[in-house]
Order: sequence, then C-alpha cells, then structure tokens
Amino acid sequence: MGLPLVISVELDKAQPKFERSFELERVVFFSDAVFAIAITLLAIELRVPNLGEIETSAALLQALLSDWAHLFAFLLSFWIIGLFWMGHHRYFRFIIRYDDGLILRNLLTLFFLTLVPFTTLVLGEYGNLPAAIWVYSLDLIGLGLSGAWLWRHATQRHRLVAPELDPQLIRIIQLRAFATPLAGVIVIFLSFFIGEYATFGFFLVIIFQRILANRYRALGY
Amino acid sequence: MGLPLVISVELDKAQPKFERSFELERVVFFSDAVFAIAITLLAIELRVPNLGEIETSAALLQALLSDWAHLFAFLLSFWIIGLFWMGHHRYFRFIIRYDDGLILRNLLTLFFLTLVPFTTLVLGEYGNLPAAIWVYSLDLIGLGLSGAWLWRHATQRHRLVAPELDPQLIRIIQLRAFATPLAGVIVIFLSFFIGEYATFGFFLVIIFQRILANRYRALGY
Amino acid sequence: MGLPLVISVELDKAQPKFERSFELERVVFFSDAVFAIAITLLAIELRVPNLGEIETSAALLQALLSDWAHLFAFLLSFWIIGLFWMGHHRYFRFIIRYDDGLILRNLLTLFFLTLVPFTTLVLGEYGNLPAAIWVYSLDLIGLGLSGAWLWRHATQRHRLVAPELDPQLIRIIQLRAFATPLAGVIVIFLSFFIGEYATFGFFLVIIFQRILANRYRALGY
Amino acid sequence: MGLPLVISVELDKAQPKFERSFELERVVFFSDAVFAIAITLLAIELRVPNLGEIETSAALLQALLSDWAHLFAFLLSFWIIGLFWMGHHRYFRFIIRYDDGLILRNLLTLFFLTLVPFTTLVLGEYGNLPAAIWVYSLDLIGLGLSGAWLWRHATQRHRLVAPELDPQLIRIIQLRAFATPLAGVIVIFLSFFIGEYATFGFFLVIIFQRILANRYRALGY
Repeated sequence: MGLPLVISVELDKAQPKFERSFELERVVFFSDAVFAIAITLLAIELRVPNLGEIETSAALLQALLSDWAHLFAFLLSFWIIGLFWMGHHRYFRFIIRYDDGLILRNLLTLFFLTLVPFTTLVLGEYGNLPAAIWVYSLDLIGLGLSGAWLWRHATQRHRLVAPELDPQLIRIIQLRAFATPLAGVIVIFLSFFIGEYATFGFFLVIIFQRILANRYRALGY
Repeated sequence: MGLPLVISVELDKAQPKFERSFELERVVFFSDAVFAIAITLLAIELRVPNLGEIETSAALLQALLSDWAHLFAFLLSFWIIGLFWMGHHRYFRFIIRYDDGLILRNLLTLFFLTLVPFTTLVLGEYGNLPAAIWVYSLDLIGLGLSGAWLWRHATQRHRLVAPELDPQLIRIIQLRAFATPLAGVIVIFLSFFIGEYATFGFFLVIIFQRILANRYRALGY
Repeated sequence: MGLPLVISVELDKAQPKFERSFELERVVFFSDAVFAIAITLLAIELRVPNLGEIETSAALLQALLSDWAHLFAFLLSFWIIGLFWMGHHRYFRFIIRYDDGLILRNLLTLFFLTLVPFTTLVLGEYGNLPAAIWVYSLDLIGLGLSGAWLWRHATQRHRLVAPELDPQLIRIIQLRAFATPLAGVIVIFLSFFIGEYATFGFFLVIIFQRILANRYRALGY
Repeated sequence: MGLPLVISVELDKAQPKFERSFELERVVFFSDAVFAIAITLLAIELRVPNLGEIETSAALLQALLSDWAHLFAFLLSFWIIGLFWMGHHRYFRFIIRYDDGLILRNLLTLFFLTLVPFTTLVLGEYGNLPAAIWVYSLDLIGLGLSGAWLWRHATQRHRLVAPELDPQLIRIIQLRAFATPLAGVIVIFLSFFIGEYATFGFFLVIIFQRILANRYRALGY
C-alpha cells in the first residue's frame, strides 16, 4: 500500500483523486478477509468421529478415513478457492479505479464464495447423489461467472484499468475466468453418466489454468 | 495506505500528528474484518439436511429447498450487510481524523453488526412469527442509527472531516444512513398487517439507496 | 501504513531498518484480526431457541429473553473486548520498534483473548455459580496483565518507543492497563458475598477508564 | 506497507514493477488472516460442559478440568501456531518478490494450517491413542515442511530475495524451518514407547528455536 497513492501521484497528476486508492484497497482487503475466512472454515466443518466406542488406534484411523468423502470435498474446495483467490489477485493487480458496479459485482463474487463451505458440506455428505454435485457445481459456476463479469466490467473500454493495458492480456485473463464455470458445466454433464466420479472433472480447472498460465506468462507477466 | 500520512503532510503541516492516520486505518481495518467475518458466518449457519433417509437426488433438492426460509434470510442479510459495508466505506472515505467518540460509535455499529448472524437465524427459523421480524428489524434499525450517529458526530461542525467538505454531500450521506432504519420501521409496521410478507419491505433499502445514489453522484462523487 | 517507513526515514536516518516497520504492522494487523474474530464469534455462540413448540410471537420473545444470561454475558464481553482493543490501539500508537519479547507478550495477550468467547459461554451458562465468575474473571485478569506486561516491556528504558516519549504518558497508559485486572480481582472478591451480582463489578472498568482518560487527555493526546 | 514500493523505487529503479509489491502484500495479508482465524478457532472448539446436573462451583470446576486433554491440546496448538506465524513472519521479512511457485507453496502451508483446529480436536478427544498423535504430528510435519519448501524456493539462487542477502542467514532460517517437522518425527517415534506422553515432545520445538534464535541474533537480525 502507499503504492496506489504514488501511482496516482505519478500517473494521474491531473486528477489526484487519491481517496479512491485507499477505498480500492479496502475493497481488496475486505475480499481477502472473506476469502481467508471461507477457506479456513472449510476445515472446521470436518467432524471428529465421537462414537465413544473408539478404543484402538486402528479404529480411530478407520473412523477418520471412512469420512474420506468430507476430506476429499475439503481438499477440492480448498484448492479451488485457493486458485480462485489467485485469479481475484490477478484482476485487482490491474484494476486501478473502482465504481459502484465493481463493488456490486465483487459482492456477488463473495456471495457465491461464502456459500462454498455450505455446498462443500452438501457434497461431502451426499456426494453419491447427482443433486449434491449439481448444487456444488452451480455454486462454482456462479463464483466463476461473477468473477468473469467483474473483469469484463473493469476492462470494457478500459473502464477501471490503465488505458495502456495490453488487450491481449485482458483477453487471456477473461479466458482464465471461464476455466471454473466450464469445468462446472462439464462436471454436471458427466454426473448424468458416471455419477459421483464426475467430481474428479474439477481437476480440469488445473489443466485449463496451466495452459492459459503459459500464454499469460508468454506476455511477460 | 501511506495515503492518510500524505494527507496530513499536505494539509496539516501545522500539526503533523501523523500517528492519527495509522490509528484511523486500524479502526477501518478492524471494522472491515468484523464485516467480513459477519458476512461469511451468515452462510455457515445454513444447515445441511442430515435426515439420513435422503437417498435420491429429488429428496435432497426437496430437503434443501424446504429450508428456503433460511436461504432467503441469508440472501437478505448478505445484501443488507454488503450495502451497509458500502455505506461504512463512504463514511470513512471522508473521515480523516478520529477521536474516542468516533471509535465508540463505530464499536456500537459493530455491536449491532455482530448480532446480525444471530437475528438472521431467528428470522430464518421463526419468520412466520411477527416477533422474529421485529427482532431482525430492530437489529437493522440499531445498525443503521448507530451508523447515522457516527456520521453526525464526524461531520458536526466538520469535527473529523476536511473543513472544505461539501455540506450538501454531508447531508446526502446522512439521508442514506437513514435508509435502513426507515425500511426497518416500515417492515415492523407492515408485520402487523401482512405478517411474514413484511420482510420483503427490506427491498425498499435498495430503492431508497438508488434514489439517493443518483443525487450523490450528481455532486460528482 | 506507509507511515512507519516515513518515520524511520525522517527520524532514524542513521539506521534505516525499514523492514522492521513492515513487520511491526504485520504484528498489529494479526492482532486486529484476532480481536475482530473473537468479538464476532461472541454473538455466534448465542443460541436460537429451537424448542419446536414455539408458535406465537409471545412465546418466541419469552424464549429469547429467558436466555438473558447469555445476552448479558455477550454484551459485557463485547464491550470489554472493545475497550481492550482501544487499549491495544493505544500501546501500538507509541510502539515504533519490535523484538521477540514484544511478539511473545502480544501472543500471550491474544491467548487470553481467544479464550474470551469460551469463558463468556461458561459465564452465560453457569453465571449463578461463583466458579463461572472466577473462570471469566481470571481470563480477563490474564488478558489485562499480559497487556500491562507488554507495555512495560516496550517502555522500560524506552526500549521500543521513541526516546522523547513523555514518561508521564507512559505511566498513565500503564495505570489504564491495570483497570481490567483490578476490576477482575474486585469481582472475584465480591462473588464470595453477593454471588452472581458480582459480575456487575466489571462496569468499574468503564469508571476507571473514564477517570484515567481525562488525565490522559490532559496531556494533550 | 508503503515500504515495498519504496524498496522498489530505491533498489529497482531499472524495473519499477511496483504492482508486484502490492500483490506480495496481499499474499502476506491473506496468510495473516488465515493464521488469525485458525488460532482463534482453536478455542472455539473448547466445549462448555452442559451436563445439566452441575449445581455447585466445585462440580463446574471439576467438569472444566476433567476436559484437561482439550485444554492441553488447545494450549499446545496455540503456541505452535504462534511460533509458526513468527517463522512465516521471518520468511516474508526477506522475500521481496513473488511468483506462482511461492503462492502455491504458501497455499500448501495454509492448507496444513487450516487443518490444525481439526487435528487439535482429534488430539484432545483421542490423545490416549497413538493414532491421534500420529494424525496431529503429521499435520505439523506437513506444515513445517511446506514452510521449509517455501523458503527454499524463495532463496535458491536468491530467486525472490535481495541478491545481497547473507547466505548464512538463509541457512539458519532454513534450519529453523525444520524444528517443527523434526519434533513431529520424534513425537511419532516416542508414541510407540511412551504413548500419550509423547505429545510433550513438542516442547522440543521451543528448545530448537531457542538455540537457533541465538545463532540468528548473532548475525545481527
């Protein structure tokens, strides 16, 4: 921080609306806090088996592992939120102004984000039912699309980014924003055919991101 | 950040009490963290139906939707807290100094805020009873009024804002501060006549805010 | 922020150990986050009466009010943590360097702080038993004493504060640090004679703070 | 904050990629928030004995103390997370750039961190079974090793630290990173011989840290 101010002093000497920068930081800060809480609460939902009759190490390990569905759902959501946070990071690396439209789209993103611990729990509890996969996937699709909408709003006619920002970079980030929603749609589609195994389709996010990350880096970022 | 310092260096050269700025940021930061936690915890209260007998996708979707009262209360509170955070944002965009009075009024605001996840739960559980609507509305009225009190304290005789701050802007922000309490009073009033449907009255907040937002923007902010 | 850097640039030109400032901010930031979470979690512990048989507004209000012991404990802890945060604020307004001793004493403070939601719950559940008051009071005594120890460490021979910091100011802040522990001791003492009413003794904190706040302000801070 | 900018302005005049600094701060900030939440949630897991039949102070104290296993696990985890946070602090004091590898390793660290409240609960509930100690120790080993991996990534060929950073300092911090994993391995080993008492082996972390802290300070940091 201290940074945006200097940017405005350096670049925007004509219109030193520096309060904007402090405000923009508050938006980023607030979002980061929500990300941090959501990602930490995921693990809180993991249950300790308290069946009372656990009296040997083997029984405890078995009880913990029998809960593998929740462990898997936690692991999946942790990394999806983590990757999504990296994406959010990327958006706000280039956004240098804000307006009400940005804040509202960001709130929409956080709305779907705060639902993730809940939909993760649904997936962990009822992952064998396609409907649990639909609920979880729809949440991630909403998360991804609202992020894409935020980026579109910010970059359309360079509304909230630097005028000299590379259009090719804008496009690649836009494509990356669709990685999660696309994986979500594929998972829902697969769930009709392979049931609970469809969830593994979310690992496509990592593949999509990897491909686009290379193109992103090729631009020198 | 780095910003308030520069403000004080630029504007208050006579009395460079720069610690104030760092301190003011801590107040803002602390408030943002409480907002972030409160808004994230809302969704944590959503329950996963664990009736055990859920064995089909249809049964799961039905179980999730039968909990629509909690989902609706979550949705409502998320956006009310979100809009209120935007309002808090607006206050502290113009507040450049602090005193004990500001901190105490801000703590009062946070007090009503931390109660929101609880009153949301009451609304979700007993929304068909007028008393649940009263409890929820009273919390939001307290939230709104303490915010209005904070802004009044800060701007009275330009106590904690820049001396040149436009009095018309001060007045419009003051009016916006009353949007939530006013909606709360209307909802309580309606609850005597239309029962649980009164809750929809909170959408008035959005209408009030929209009207005032236009007048706010007309001032060039 | 950006601030401590400038301080070091302005005042410590000889030894521009600027990383220290960024590090000190992380300590403050981390503490603020723990304060924010602890104060928000207090209300999460409030229970929604789900007796099922609640079918009238009167029954709901009665059920909520019958839980007055938890509401009172929540209210008390919210304001005690709030005041304590203001005290922590005061310490770090004047602390401009850090060492391992400061971080460890700060962690000790946070240790007692993270216990407050738990001891508040004990007080709300068993406030009629003197032992619940002892547990709660001991937690606050620990909180207050570790804060006093932190301030002592920081100011002894001006270890971590500016060399020109007014010794009278140091002493008054030290006295304020003892307000909560002193109230705690009085409450424990009273609990032997007036049982659960002893808890009201914590309002002494406010009186103590008010007296010392006037002396503090008389110094021009 | 404000700080990294100045570093880049002062040191990197050639390539003023200042966004990096703001981004790096977001990483640190996000991590601090996760640390703060994890450490605060530890105490939330402490249970209030609600057996109903508690009617005397003696019975309450007995009930609270009979839960000593959870209290001990909470105490242990609080200080281990606290020390680990100090270590994380140390890493990022010297890291001045970031790349995707750093963020992913940092996410891995946070992954093991968010599991700590859960494994602490397992330890508190089943600490008499070796398997509970293994689960807890493995989590801490993962935490420590991912931190060591992060530091290695950052310092190898001075990838993300200042080119002039003392190699001896890099080595000592690397050694400190292994304190927790080493203690974890010893505790698992001991658990085969002395059962639940093995947990006390974690106090070795403090001894290891003390020895290395002296060597660290000898370098003038």
